[in-house]
Amino acid sequence: MKNMEEFINSIDFKKAGGLIPAIAQDYLTKEVLMLAYMNEESLRRTLEGETAWYYSRSRNELWNKGSTSGHFQYIKEIRVDCDNDTILLLVEQKGAACHTGEKSCFYRKVK
Amino acid sequence: MKNMEEFINSIDFKKAGGLIPAIAQDYLTKEVLMLAYMNEESLRRTLEGETAWYYSRSRNELWNKGSTSGHFQYIKEIRVDCDNDTILLLVEQKGAACHTGEKSCFYRKVK
Repeated sequence: MKNMEEFINSIDFKKAGGLIPAIAQDYLTKEVLMLAYMNEESLRRTLEGETAWYYSRSRNELWNKGSTSGHFQYIKEIRVDCDNDTILLLVEQKGAACHTGEKSCFYRKVK
Repeated sequence: MKNMEEFINSIDFKKAGGLIPAIAQDYLTKEVLMLAYMNEESLRRTLEGETAWYYSRSRNELWNKGSTSGHFQYIKEIRVDCDNDTILLLVEQKGAACHTGEKSCFYRKVK
């Protein structure tokens, strides 16, 4: 990818203590699957590779989603918002995005 | 809304310093429009009212999106994720979600 480091440097990681939110959306159904966080290195690996990388706040480590469960997210498209502080991933979700077994983490309707 | 305070109390505001991310998605096209943050009071007002309320991190104040621009987000559905720390709003977006005039804040494709 051309100018990858330039893009990474443009992202405002400082605003929220080194992590930015990343939304994963099914590239076909447009269903919002989950929200997780990325540090600089997880964004770099996501840009370079084929699947989504996040940063686990609970485990304090880089996290290649699917590496344990097999539920990888294959990247179809990466978008960034107007403020350079949120990433939107359009993905092909293998299996379920949610650890509960639901396709999406947003399976509960409040209103 | 029944049990609103119970729901608000279940949300993990502490994890990220009193604010949780909220994703706004167009209820018809399923386009992801923006991500903003909510504190407890903005979530309460969103649950009680007809339009989306956020908390502006830059202005440090409650923010009824559209109150200045007219670009209100009418709430069609509210969802919560498995960890109780992210909200998904399905909205009818009046005008543009983005301050640039673009419909969505995610108008730039990175990859």
